[in-house]
Amino acid sequence: METFFLSTHHEIEVFERCYRNRLPLLLKGPTGCGKSQLVSTMANKLQVPLIKVACNEDTSSADLLGRFLIKGSETIWQDGPVTRAVREGCILYLDEIAEAREDVIVALHPLTDHRREIYLDRINEVVQAPANFMCVASFNPGYQKGFKELKPSTRQRFVNCVMTYLDPENETQLLIRLTGIDRPQAQKLIKLANKIRQMNELNLKETVSTRILVYASILMKDGMNPRRACSVSLAEVLSDDLEIIQSLKDLIDLSF
Amino acid sequence: METFFLSTHHEIEVFERCYRNRLPLLLKGPTGCGKSQLVSTMANKLQVPLIKVACNEDTSSADLLGRFLIKGSETIWQDGPVTRAVREGCILYLDEIAEAREDVIVALHPLTDHRREIYLDRINEVVQAPANFMCVASFNPGYQKGFKELKPSTRQRFVNCVMTYLDPENETQLLIRLTGIDRPQAQKLIKLANKIRQMNELNLKETVSTRILVYASILMKDGMNPRRACSVSLAEVLSDDLEIIQSLKDLIDLSF
Amino acid sequence: METFFLSTHHEIEVFERCYRNRLPLLLKGPTGCGKSQLVSTMANKLQVPLIKVACNEDTSSADLLGRFLIKGSETIWQDGPVTRAVREGCILYLDEIAEAREDVIVALHPLTDHRREIYLDRINEVVQAPANFMCVASFNPGYQKGFKELKPSTRQRFVNCVMTYLDPENETQLLIRLTGIDRPQAQKLIKLANKIRQMNELNLKETVSTRILVYASILMKDGMNPRRACSVSLAEVLSDDLEIIQSLKDLIDLSF
Amino acid sequence: METFFLSTHHEIEVFERCYRNRLPLLLKGPTGCGKSQLVSTMANKLQVPLIKVACNEDTSSADLLGRFLIKGSETIWQDGPVTRAVREGCILYLDEIAEAREDVIVALHPLTDHRREIYLDRINEVVQAPANFMCVASFNPGYQKGFKELKPSTRQRFVNCVMTYLDPENETQLLIRLTGIDRPQAQKLIKLANKIRQMNELNLKETVSTRILVYASILMKDGMNPRRACSVSLAEVLSDDLEIIQSLKDLIDLSF
Amino acid sequence: METFFLSTHHEIEVFERCYRNRLPLLLKGPTGCGKSQLVSTMANKLQVPLIKVACNEDTSSADLLGRFLIKGSETIWQDGPVTRAVREGCILYLDEIAEAREDVIVALHPLTDHRREIYLDRINEVVQAPANFMCVASFNPGYQKGFKELKPSTRQRFVNCVMTYLDPENETQLLIRLTGIDRPQAQKLIKLANKIRQMNELNLKETVSTRILVYASILMKDGMNPRRACSVSLAEVLSDDLEIIQSLKDLIDLSF
Amino acid sequence: METFFLSTHHEIEVFERCYRNRLPLLLKGPTGCGKSQLVSTMANKLQVPLIKVACNEDTSSADLLGRFLIKGSETIWQDGPVTRAVREGCILYLDEIAEAREDVIVALHPLTDHRREIYLDRINEVVQAPANFMCVASFNPGYQKGFKELKPSTRQRFVNCVMTYLDPENETQLLIRLTGIDRPQAQKLIKLANKIRQMNELNLKETVSTRILVYASILMKDGMNPRRACSVSLAEVLSDDLEIIQSLKDLIDLSF
Repeated sequence: METFFLSTHHEIEVFERCYRNRLPLLLKGPTGCGKSQLVSTMANKLQVPLIKVACNEDTSSADLLGRFLIKGSETIWQDGPVTRAVREGCILYLDEIAEAREDVIVALHPLTDHRREIYLDRINEVVQAPANFMCVASFNPGYQKGFKELKPSTRQRFVNCVMTYLDPENETQLLIRLTGIDRPQAQKLIKLANKIRQMNELNLKETVSTRILVYASILMKDGMNPRRACSVSLAEVLSDDLEIIQSLKDLIDLSF
Repeated sequence: METFFLSTHHEIEVFERCYRNRLPLLLKGPTGCGKSQLVSTMANKLQVPLIKVACNEDTSSADLLGRFLIKGSETIWQDGPVTRAVREGCILYLDEIAEAREDVIVALHPLTDHRREIYLDRINEVVQAPANFMCVASFNPGYQKGFKELKPSTRQRFVNCVMTYLDPENETQLLIRLTGIDRPQAQKLIKLANKIRQMNELNLKETVSTRILVYASILMKDGMNPRRACSVSLAEVLSDDLEIIQSLKDLIDLSF
Repeated sequence: METFFLSTHHEIEVFERCYRNRLPLLLKGPTGCGKSQLVSTMANKLQVPLIKVACNEDTSSADLLGRFLIKGSETIWQDGPVTRAVREGCILYLDEIAEAREDVIVALHPLTDHRREIYLDRINEVVQAPANFMCVASFNPGYQKGFKELKPSTRQRFVNCVMTYLDPENETQLLIRLTGIDRPQAQKLIKLANKIRQMNELNLKETVSTRILVYASILMKDGMNPRRACSVSLAEVLSDDLEIIQSLKDLIDLSF
Repeated sequence: METFFLSTHHEIEVFERCYRNRLPLLLKGPTGCGKSQLVSTMANKLQVPLIKVACNEDTSSADLLGRFLIKGSETIWQDGPVTRAVREGCILYLDEIAEAREDVIVALHPLTDHRREIYLDRINEVVQAPANFMCVASFNPGYQKGFKELKPSTRQRFVNCVMTYLDPENETQLLIRLTGIDRPQAQKLIKLANKIRQMNELNLKETVSTRILVYASILMKDGMNPRRACSVSLAEVLSDDLEIIQSLKDLIDLSF
Repeated sequence: METFFLSTHHEIEVFERCYRNRLPLLLKGPTGCGKSQLVSTMANKLQVPLIKVACNEDTSSADLLGRFLIKGSETIWQDGPVTRAVREGCILYLDEIAEAREDVIVALHPLTDHRREIYLDRINEVVQAPANFMCVASFNPGYQKGFKELKPSTRQRFVNCVMTYLDPENETQLLIRLTGIDRPQAQKLIKLANKIRQMNELNLKETVSTRILVYASILMKDGMNPRRACSVSLAEVLSDDLEIIQSLKDLIDLSF
Repeated sequence: METFFLSTHHEIEVFERCYRNRLPLLLKGPTGCGKSQLVSTMANKLQVPLIKVACNEDTSSADLLGRFLIKGSETIWQDGPVTRAVREGCILYLDEIAEAREDVIVALHPLTDHRREIYLDRINEVVQAPANFMCVASFNPGYQKGFKELKPSTRQRFVNCVMTYLDPENETQLLIRLTGIDRPQAQKLIKLANKIRQMNELNLKETVSTRILVYASILMKDGMNPRRACSVSLAEVLSDDLEIIQSLKDLIDLSF
């Protein structure tokens, strides 16, 4: 699941041009559409190590930049993941950047403009990013509606690349290669997924991700009844409302 | 109460397939329907040690992953319960996961995808989960209504298994085996419980759990008057509203 | 006031059966109806030491379970009151449990089910409760209305015993024995108290407790004018609204 | 201002009986009506030292009970003001108790019932109050309206003594003795004060305290024009609304 | 700007009488009307050193009273600015006192009544204020409207002195003496300022302060075009609303 | 991008006069209009080093002023960025000052009036700013609407300089010099940008910054299709609303 990605879109071009021109990149798209996979794939292809940071409102900038640790009678400085990414020239992947605290985002600003540096005030050191450092972030506009948004002064620091689910043929191939499921079953799953993805009337908070389909395929490949496999990895996951779960199960029954 | 579980549903199949395929599992169901019991039973059956973590909004990720402790003039690292579960290959049971703080959930993400690892930033160590590690979580959709919900990006990482109360015959047997109550009394209790479980008009926040019935059985077996036993372990527990308590007592009086 | 309790209800039976069967007990009732007195009396009768913890939202689980203290160059572990109660086999009385923080309640869960143990993560020790350990909690449903409630998953862990004020004859005897007041005065006080307790139209947040009557008796026994004694220990205590205070004083004037 | 108090009410009787019978006392009344003065006067009369604690929501129970202090390489325990009051047998005066945090109030509960003790969990010591210890609190019902109230379980632990402003003759004498102002001027001031105290239509948050009148007297005695003295110590203090200030100044002009 | 002040009001009399009679003083008035200048001027005149504390909700009482500092292996006590003011007999100026946290204000109460002392609980020391200590505070009623107000129990501890802008002739002289601007230009500026100060229909949050006029004078004296000088130091400062800025610029154009 | 700035406005005059007369300066304007560039350019021109501080609500005044650091057994003081700026005589640039916490702003007040000093209470030192110290802040009125505003007492301490986007010819030249794009392409981009900047009906939170245009130019110069370059650096960045993104793409298609 980690090492290949079937791009039918322009993501790879945008990623490579940003890397080459040292521009920060923001990946916009729904849960499980392959944002993390794209970053891993590109890190592999560009031969640059990858450091991933899951942003959330309880992370402090010390968690990211580093801190002093007391060991016995000594005090030693320990780089945080962002500092390591800058020092060693990695791709830094800030997952769900809109969840991060304001001070953390602001501390990362100098990394995302022409300066490409990070300032460690505790040890009074400026760390300059080497040529192979790249800053990538992810963002799910579906979540953030009128709630937690990136400030324009942060948003405008990134080139924005929209991502969505794979087209049916590619998504089918992905399932087969990742789980060993046979083609007809995979195709039924993809057809079911796309039917649900188009049904806005279900009012789901988030729709069927590729990850969900991988889970269903694994369970079916393992011998579970397809209807039960879809029920536990799909219908029960997407909603807690009994009527909506029933509608999803009806769709599953029509497919298998 | 810990060591046996009378499954009439598909929970055991789902649990075993997830364990075998290394998929995380979320148990969905009301209070006291046997989620914890299922996990203990399966841990026993699979011969894997169990570590349980009760999630709540005051737990920090350091509580779960570990921290440095100062002992005399030495500083020693102490693994938290999650780290121990990963290192030693246990079933990690995250009870009421929706109550956990966002940063804690996010720190557990790498455990719930193909990586199956945990990163301890304080000691800069990645701990890889062995084959017999499994992550199980519980979730009560009744509580969470429009209030505290799991983010879809977390929810879609788990296969979801719905659980509900045992059917009458199995629940009767369970009471007999756990408390030694005689069959006719047990049957009356189960009948009463199911009558209350179907009365939506009582508007109870949570209905009669199996745990409640075990308490009532213990007190009856100990010689307490059945009406009083049901009053203190059932009617007074389910509500503080005097009229609803009276309705519950009327139902109890009809049963005993 | 501590060492005797005139039960006319079933509290003592419920308490003893719970103690014998190792079930946790929740005492439900208004302020000053004798919940603490019942617990002291029973601790005395059962010959088990009593440890009382007043719950509130600023208490941390470290306050209850224990913490490391630095003394000179040494770090020593100090058990908190809950840990002491478990280790030494006491009755643990959690006063106003609904006021406690969620993480504290959750840390006490293993004490209230079949496990009967407490886990001290800082020193990685499980303390098993001996046979004479019992967990008792108190709860005032009048306060909690639609505000701070126990979660059903906590509530269903306790047998629930409702308590209310003593009947007139017993409450009269209690006043006489505790304060030495003479019977006619005591009877007038109890009559006044019960008149006020039935007047819902006064809309008092809490009505006349036995404690209040003890205070009034002490002041009357000391020689204070009964009307003044009732004014300072009863009318002015129950309300700050001038009209309601006047109504209460009118009732007092009718009594004395 | 500290050492005498002209009681025309029953406060002294109530205070003495509570002290003699070891009952906690709550003084209810508006700002500046003499609550603190009463406590000082009584402490003097009863020959018991006085310790005053101003309650507010930022005070922790460690601030009141005590804490460990690190001095050089030693750790020493330091009693807080409440602990000192209990150990040394003082009158403990909790000013504006309704402002205190819930955990602080709860920590003081054992001091206000038959136990009369305080528990210092950090050093695991119970300090028993000697006979001459007394707990007095103050409370201003005007502030607290529908906002920050004492819980009934706390309120019912205190005998309640209502206080209000002195009657005109006594308040006049007080001004003369405290500031040396001459009688006719003092009488004019008191008349003005009582006129304002009765004008509910001014909608003042708090009305003219005795403290305000002392300030005005001092400035007049020092030679300031009475109208200006009343303006700066009374009109400008009671309101920031220009129209209300003007009304107050008109009343002042009518008086002087 | 610091060392002279052209009083046309009664502020100096009120200040001196309060100093002489040891009464605390509160200066009420809009931003930039000269409150700080009055305090500096009087400190100079009375030959008492001045210590200024800018109050805000993030200042703790330890910041003001003092704290222990660890230096190498020693722990030393360091007085905060308030303690220094009391010990050394200074004028303590609490700027914008309504912004301070409740516990800070309460800790200062003993300084503002007959006790005139401060209690340092950490070192268990009472510091008595000498005769030349004076407590002055400032307060801007314009800000505080229905938002953050001083509690009456604090407010009534201060004599209140209202301040407003200087009259035109005095304000003109001030500009000339402070900045060297020539009289006709200064007069035009003052006329413009007073026109704006009277236009309530502009709905400005705060109107033209003397500070603003000093800035405009400095820039004009430096050779900047008067319209531009007024635009950058006045119009753009008072509002961000484009229409209001235009109205202000029209007024400026009419003046220069 | 750092070292030149094509001013067609009066910013340079205002900046220089403020520097010469030691007045603090506030730059008002939208995201990416060149506020930071102006400050860098002027620091260069005036030959004064520049220290930039990104304000946000999680920065404490210790972060800015300095703190004690423990290194081995020694405690050493480390100046924060503001203190360094004052000590060494730099231009201090407070980016987005309205985001800073109140206590931080207040701690900087003495730097922005005639005192021009900073007080370090931890080491009890006053640091006086040399002649070449200047305090510059930035502020975006678009963000702050009815939300987070500077208090007038802070605002009136700064001369205010409004900034907006460059005029078309200058902005075109800037793109060419910074990115090497050819003139016709640059002109098309600027024309597109100004069309969008005038369309209030799009209701964008922030409009096209110069930074965005630089990104688009870089990608076009690198060989990316202009429509795609504008899509990823402009349309997808300015909105997450599918209809608005489509409108922006239509405008892009009309331009290229």
